[in-house]
Amino acid sequence: MASGLQQLCVFLLFVVGEVLSFPVNQGAKPAVSCGYESCHATKPDMLNVHLVPHTHDDVGWLKTVDQYYYGDRNDIQHAGVQYILDSVVDQLIKNPDRRFIYVETAFFYRWWKQQSSATQQTVKQLVDEGRLEFVNGGWCMSDEATTHYSAVIDQMTIGLRFLNETFGPCGRPRVAWHIDPFGHAREHASMFAQMGYDGLFFGRLDYQDRAHRMREKEQELLWRASDSLTPPMADLFTGILPNGYNPPEGFCWDQFCDDPPIRDDPDLEDYNVDDVVKRFLAIAKNQATVYKTNHIIMTMGSDFQYENANLWYKNLDKLIHYVNALQAKGSKVNVLYSTPSCYLQELHRANLTWALKTDDFFPYADDAHDFWTGYFTSRPALKRYERISNGNLQICNQLEVLGGPVSRKGPFGEGDSQTMKKAMAVAQHHDAVSGTEKQHVANDYARKLAEGWQHCQVVVSNSLAGLSSSSAERIYCDNLNVSVCPLTESSKKFSVNVYNPLAQPVNWAVRLPVNGTAYSVSDAKGRSVDCQVVPVSRATQNVRRNRGFAVNELVFQVQAPPLGYTIYFVSLRQDGPPPASTQPRPPTVIKNKFLQVTFDPDTGLLSSLSNLETKQTIKLTQNFYWYNASDGKNMDSSQPSGAYIFRPNSSTPFGISRTAKTETVQTSVVQEVRQWFAPWVSQVVRLYTDSRTLELEWTVGPVPIDDHLGKEVITRLDTSIKTSEIFYTDSNGREVLQRRKDFRPTWQLKQSEPIAGNYYPINSRAFIKDDEDQLTVVTDRSQGGASIQNGSLEIMLHRRLLYDDFRGVGEPLNEISSIFPEGLVVRGRLLLSLDRPPTAADTHRPLAQQVVLQPLLTFTDGELNSNTRLEFSGLQAALPPAVHLLTLTQWDKDKVLLRLEHQFQSWESKRNSKPVTVNLQKLFSTLDVLGASELNLSANQWKDEMSRFDWTPQTDEKPLLKTFEDHSDWEVTLRPMEIRTFLLRVRLR
Amino acid sequence: MASGLQQLCVFLLFVVGEVLSFPVNQGAKPAVSCGYESCHATKPDMLNVHLVPHTHDDVGWLKTVDQYYYGDRNDIQHAGVQYILDSVVDQLIKNPDRRFIYVETAFFYRWWKQQSSATQQTVKQLVDEGRLEFVNGGWCMSDEATTHYSAVIDQMTIGLRFLNETFGPCGRPRVAWHIDPFGHAREHASMFAQMGYDGLFFGRLDYQDRAHRMREKEQELLWRASDSLTPPMADLFTGILPNGYNPPEGFCWDQFCDDPPIRDDPDLEDYNVDDVVKRFLAIAKNQATVYKTNHIIMTMGSDFQYENANLWYKNLDKLIHYVNALQAKGSKVNVLYSTPSCYLQELHRANLTWALKTDDFFPYADDAHDFWTGYFTSRPALKRYERISNGNLQICNQLEVLGGPVSRKGPFGEGDSQTMKKAMAVAQHHDAVSGTEKQHVANDYARKLAEGWQHCQVVVSNSLAGLSSSSAERIYCDNLNVSVCPLTESSKKFSVNVYNPLAQPVNWAVRLPVNGTAYSVSDAKGRSVDCQVVPVSRATQNVRRNRGFAVNELVFQVQAPPLGYTIYFVSLRQDGPPPASTQPRPPTVIKNKFLQVTFDPDTGLLSSLSNLETKQTIKLTQNFYWYNASDGKNMDSSQPSGAYIFRPNSSTPFGISRTAKTETVQTSVVQEVRQWFAPWVSQVVRLYTDSRTLELEWTVGPVPIDDHLGKEVITRLDTSIKTSEIFYTDSNGREVLQRRKDFRPTWQLKQSEPIAGNYYPINSRAFIKDDEDQLTVVTDRSQGGASIQNGSLEIMLHRRLLYDDFRGVGEPLNEISSIFPEGLVVRGRLLLSLDRPPTAADTHRPLAQQVVLQPLLTFTDGELNSNTRLEFSGLQAALPPAVHLLTLTQWDKDKVLLRLEHQFQSWESKRNSKPVTVNLQKLFSTLDVLGASELNLSANQWKDEMSRFDWTPQTDEKPLLKTFEDHSDWEVTLRPMEIRTFLLRVRLR
Repeated sequence: MASGLQQLCVFLLFVVGEVLSFPVNQGAKPAVSCGYESCHATKPDMLNVHLVPHTHDDVGWLKTVDQYYYGDRNDIQHAGVQYILDSVVDQLIKNPDRRFIYVETAFFYRWWKQQSSATQQTVKQLVDEGRLEFVNGGWCMSDEATTHYSAVIDQMTIGLRFLNETFGPCGRPRVAWHIDPFGHAREHASMFAQMGYDGLFFGRLDYQDRAHRMREKEQELLWRASDSLTPPMADLFTGILPNGYNPPEGFCWDQFCDDPPIRDDPDLEDYNVDDVVKRFLAIAKNQATVYKTNHIIMTMGSDFQYENANLWYKNLDKLIHYVNALQAKGSKVNVLYSTPSCYLQELHRANLTWALKTDDFFPYADDAHDFWTGYFTSRPALKRYERISNGNLQICNQLEVLGGPVSRKGPFGEGDSQTMKKAMAVAQHHDAVSGTEKQHVANDYARKLAEGWQHCQVVVSNSLAGLSSSSAERIYCDNLNVSVCPLTESSKKFSVNVYNPLAQPVNWAVRLPVNGTAYSVSDAKGRSVDCQVVPVSRATQNVRRNRGFAVNELVFQVQAPPLGYTIYFVSLRQDGPPPASTQPRPPTVIKNKFLQVTFDPDTGLLSSLSNLETKQTIKLTQNFYWYNASDGKNMDSSQPSGAYIFRPNSSTPFGISRTAKTETVQTSVVQEVRQWFAPWVSQVVRLYTDSRTLELEWTVGPVPIDDHLGKEVITRLDTSIKTSEIFYTDSNGREVLQRRKDFRPTWQLKQSEPIAGNYYPINSRAFIKDDEDQLTVVTDRSQGGASIQNGSLEIMLHRRLLYDDFRGVGEPLNEISSIFPEGLVVRGRLLLSLDRPPTAADTHRPLAQQVVLQPLLTFTDGELNSNTRLEFSGLQAALPPAVHLLTLTQWDKDKVLLRLEHQFQSWESKRNSKPVTVNLQKLFSTLDVLGASELNLSANQWKDEMSRFDWTPQTDEKPLLKTFEDHSDWEVTLRPMEIRTFLLRVRLR
Repeated sequence: MASGLQQLCVFLLFVVGEVLSFPVNQGAKPAVSCGYESCHATKPDMLNVHLVPHTHDDVGWLKTVDQYYYGDRNDIQHAGVQYILDSVVDQLIKNPDRRFIYVETAFFYRWWKQQSSATQQTVKQLVDEGRLEFVNGGWCMSDEATTHYSAVIDQMTIGLRFLNETFGPCGRPRVAWHIDPFGHAREHASMFAQMGYDGLFFGRLDYQDRAHRMREKEQELLWRASDSLTPPMADLFTGILPNGYNPPEGFCWDQFCDDPPIRDDPDLEDYNVDDVVKRFLAIAKNQATVYKTNHIIMTMGSDFQYENANLWYKNLDKLIHYVNALQAKGSKVNVLYSTPSCYLQELHRANLTWALKTDDFFPYADDAHDFWTGYFTSRPALKRYERISNGNLQICNQLEVLGGPVSRKGPFGEGDSQTMKKAMAVAQHHDAVSGTEKQHVANDYARKLAEGWQHCQVVVSNSLAGLSSSSAERIYCDNLNVSVCPLTESSKKFSVNVYNPLAQPVNWAVRLPVNGTAYSVSDAKGRSVDCQVVPVSRATQNVRRNRGFAVNELVFQVQAPPLGYTIYFVSLRQDGPPPASTQPRPPTVIKNKFLQVTFDPDTGLLSSLSNLETKQTIKLTQNFYWYNASDGKNMDSSQPSGAYIFRPNSSTPFGISRTAKTETVQTSVVQEVRQWFAPWVSQVVRLYTDSRTLELEWTVGPVPIDDHLGKEVITRLDTSIKTSEIFYTDSNGREVLQRRKDFRPTWQLKQSEPIAGNYYPINSRAFIKDDEDQLTVVTDRSQGGASIQNGSLEIMLHRRLLYDDFRGVGEPLNEISSIFPEGLVVRGRLLLSLDRPPTAADTHRPLAQQVVLQPLLTFTDGELNSNTRLEFSGLQAALPPAVHLLTLTQWDKDKVLLRLEHQFQSWESKRNSKPVTVNLQKLFSTLDVLGASELNLSANQWKDEMSRFDWTPQTDEKPLLKTFEDHSDWEVTLRPMEIRTFLLRVRLR
């Protein structure tokens, strides 16, 4: 039965006379039999072996995504995706029994648009008949350790949307397929469940976990991926593939493989059919002993395989023929072409109970000394740039909606958000933001993001011009983190537009490079704003190189309205006071009305942190260290540290310096203690007057390697908190999971790497706590972290390595650039908050969103036109604190996609962890919402048409299907950790 | 117009009421437009670039032919011909403009028989439309230096026959395509001309020759390939390809290549169309400067390419599109899909005159120290086994005809000659008999030949049983060369059937291993035959290892009738004389009534040779030496000697021993001087009583390498003949060419390898001469040889090398086997004749044929049945001495293929170098010839339908087309060096 997405039967949640629909495929269609209906029959009394022909096409890794597509630079790696799709389609046509799955829409989309309409029709028919099936179907197969959920949802959305609009329901993937990511995040499983997938398959998990699950037949399980969402909302059936994602040994028939083809011509030497069949049956029977049902799956493919699909299919045809021919002689093995969904359907039909899992699959180790925990931090600059780009894209999306059509074509030319959307989508790939690609590929990801931002800047400029009625030139300063902005450095009079993408107002500290010594700042209402000029730090002068020459920074706090902007005016004063001076010694204490921070006068290090409101104090020492990266030479194993792998050759990190040289700047706006640990490590401990968080701005690099030692640089916070070897990290920026040292929740861990084996990904926050105190660290990018000692929390900041780690990338992670030829310098911020545990989330949830979606500052030189609108908010009112505006983006001409998110877990805040209701029609200040339909999370299916397989866990009663109850009409209720996705028909007022 | 081969219009030379026809394709055919008619149009005012997509599929090299076909052992080399043909056909279908040529019928045939009839129909259509064109079309692309013309004609015949029977005229190749062989033999060109090819293209020639021809624009030329045949019978237009057989640099788009694909999507990075087009135009224009016409050819393919033809065609389609698109902007370059024949047609249309060449393209050097002259000798055992196998196959073919249907199915079971034909055909490949394959592949060729001979033995046994009316068990002794034959070693009474495949009677010395001391031998007429028992030599005991234990050899001369057999009877005598004893010292002289040979009593070496009939005497010293093979380490270049390359590191060979230890055996049948030079080099100088030739039976090996020096072992004949640095070698066993030291006939040679650069292939004979004396050496296999000093002739016998020579084979030529684990021992014979130059050919021509087609001895234990026919000749009478029966083989049920050859060059024999006439109907004694049609040499076209392009040489008037004048009816006249090919309809009497 064709789903309603294809027709005009659209579920309408809030009927206001408008009907929303997805684009509908044109033309008469033959009867379709795709999805589960198109599966080959199996034999109930036999062992059914599901052969799944597939290719794994990295959206960039050793080559750029473009090089992979075209098959360029085959000297690096032979791989050409255009040819894979050409070849597979040709081969599928030859035999209707054959099946293929395709995964990465970034590639498929590119290929599709180069095909003739005849080929497109052929492919549509293959899809309609289930012969070509899409699985996963996002733009890429995202990394799970270092991605932020917001960007993952976005990339899945654009991939699935393309499939939906091109193929209709037959193009909708039924299973998630994360065969390659290096460990698996619970939040990914939760998202997949909410996207409507019936199951997830992956290939990599800890080798001990695998062995345990093989013994227990628990390689197929039910993953309950949220502790807040009502089951089965975030339940996801999860299958662990038998051979990673490779074929069984001896059965790889790709052009890259050397396994013997089936030689079935009796006229030739070496007729080998009997041998091949015998080997296959042995493998199949052996595999069946570690799975539960009389169905097993074999992945027949691997990286960039099927460029010449004939090799695979010709031999698979023969394999199936000859193995099944033995059934006439009593064999009880039945082999068939299949897909993951067809296999999943058989598992579902088996109607068994499945082990329930509630934690995640981190960290991933493929051997005793081979923990894939280095990539949590690898390429910290790229990781930060990707995170900033996500914020910039959200702003671009929002302003495209708020500004209307003029955003895309306006006074600053033609802009688009698509370029940035695609750039961000490919950056989510598991060898992109993960930092595990070759250097030239990392450069290409960054270039793509920069290009996307160029396109978006036109949208932003056009939109802000429209909203503000000012077409004055708008200047972007993307290097403010290193105090570079030519305009502010030279201008005597300029304005700063502060756009806030959050649905709540924001306070933000602005720091602008200037060369004057005194400025006056006023806000949109003409009120004077306290501002201070402080000298640029030595660290900043070092790190900015010759990109800027400002001697001072102008610092002031701004406040911006929700989903809107405000403007501040800055003028140079001729007669102002001198800039703040630096004091050579640290104060014993810096404090504002919320926090007090003490320093050890002997070492210059932090010594305590107090929350003055809650009257709590902890001891807090913080310093920088480095692990000596193993070179693989004199150890228990030859595994070096590399882009993927973290392997210190000692569990004790080296200190950079026991003491810090310090300088202090204390002003009415900000107090800073500038710590200098080494020529390559410095930090500013910074407390803004109005802030409840302590900022640690670290600058690390160039990491010295003249001692020929690779270094993995960490900062460690040592506190008086009694952590009992437990700490907490978030999963993809959302729900928090507990981590216990040398412990895994589902099996008896044999710990072989006391440091690397305790590292976990931190996407936006980590915390340690006891009954009294919770110290939360909000990060500005994904990083690896651990708690090795009681009360301590360490975060890896930067890595510089001299050896490849033998996982394919073929380069040591030794980043240099034209600006930093002697080694990359990286700067970032950790934001610390100290709270009572029951209320800590009330601080860190909004704080983390502020870091992810930080305000965008744009500048205009000179005076503004007098009719400029100085302040704007797209919302009628700020949303409640629990509600995060996750997505607001133009869908098509008159529709926008909206995602509202409850950003608290059910247990973490007395105040905020409860249902909250939002009225969609009263949301926007400048948009009339004419209609709204709710969608699944990935926006490729109407919410009410979502119908997933139900699975029974072993250790829990079967959850009841939750029904959504919204109050009425336009009001939508969000429960903790819920994300609700709407397609709105809107009209600009 | 479809040629008559397809229809029933058959030219009938000798009408006797019978019409011969080729098999006709079944079924209605669409109108065909293949061959020259199917070529794409070109543009007369532009430079036309003919792109020729092709694959070069070695019929065995690094892998066996079966492994190549299936794509097995891809760990050695990625190559799978089945997939190439699959893929090319798929891709040709996609675009009617595309073209492909296929060369090796050994592979195509195998693929064809695995295809469905639907695919076969598709392929037929592609062939009929000229989109798939066969070039060359033999079973393989034969080697030119080490093959015998007889086997080359055979292998071409079976390949072309398959194409003809499968595809009709559209399957007939128009051009010969020898892109890879390592030097080019004039006799090959002659054969190709007589096979009806319009032209030949190849890729490899001496780098100096290439440079000269580029300067002179003589890379396209007219090769006059015979000094005996009337032009243009052996004239062949010859084109030298611009890049070997590879694509121009930067334009290889196969899966094995790394060149950038055409990236023409402006949405992607690195749009490179402009760059690609610019590079292509530059290459095309540059190439045009070294060729004569406004047409140039580019070979777009290489070894085993097009396994995924999509990569090639997709990019070629784009290249053609974008390059030709520039014509609208004034570009004068026109690119098109083409084939060698389409290119050749344009050269022919150009109506120019072409340089005339009458020598050959040996030796081949690709750099100053890189002479491909080692493979002339590489793998001497395989080369000998191939030569013996050729003789065995001819015998098998003949007896299949003479014996009638009972040969294929008779008292000894079912036999066939096909297996042996195919085994011999693949052995002609340019990495087979050449000795340049990997060891395991050489083993496979030998295995195939042995298997073929097993099948043939059944044919031979059945046929001889029929002809002789005796079904007694027939024993084959294939190891007589090392005195191993279990029957003769143990039997007291046995008979020897001597089958003579020549059309003239033969005298032959039989040596049988025995353990008795005296035997009596009688012939078919009951006459006693002089026989002698001589002790087995120490060298033979060494070389046979434990395969036999005979202490003596029984020696006697036999005479066998033409194309027939006779039987000799052997009985052990209890009362006979003791065997001949060996004398520890050499005689000063051994002689018979024809020859006298003297030895130096001090050294034990030969000292002179006299022909007693002509009363001529020469000084003749002969000894063994070895060149120290370069290891590539301390020389002008890093080139070592290897399977292909001969590179001594000094021009002075090391002597094995200045003197020989000798033993002498002198009997009434044979006189032998057994020389012992070293544990690994020995020789028997042997003079049979009735023989006009002196036999040197050499035994070399295991070549010692414990000194870590590779060795290339030669024997050198030093004579008093005044050679003026000239010697003579045959070309593929037929016409003889003059070789002059440090000289090439068509360019000024800069000699950089004084030894290796003077080596030439010897296929069956070499000679040195002056006005008085000609010393001819007839060899038993192909070998390399040179004349470095005045009066001397050296022949390389064996090679054992420790380094690979970087031409791809990837192994040192260091042969061992299970029988010779310490290194291969090789034995062979050189037959010397001393004559006056004007009559020398009268001796060496028949002598060489006797060695090529030596009698087959088969044995029967005990008494023969009394009604056994003891003698048989298939001929009514021996053919004249000038006429060689080259081919007699069953064609189909009632037809046989006959080739008659005039075996003398026009200048070499006063007696024999003149036309000779044979009456076909009076040829056979047991076959009635009912009809006869003359064919081209390769038997795939009626002779009178042969119509080749005519070409005008620069330096000679255009030859008139020769008309054949046969006397009448059944009489056919052969002129010097002519081969005439007939299809006879026959009936067994």
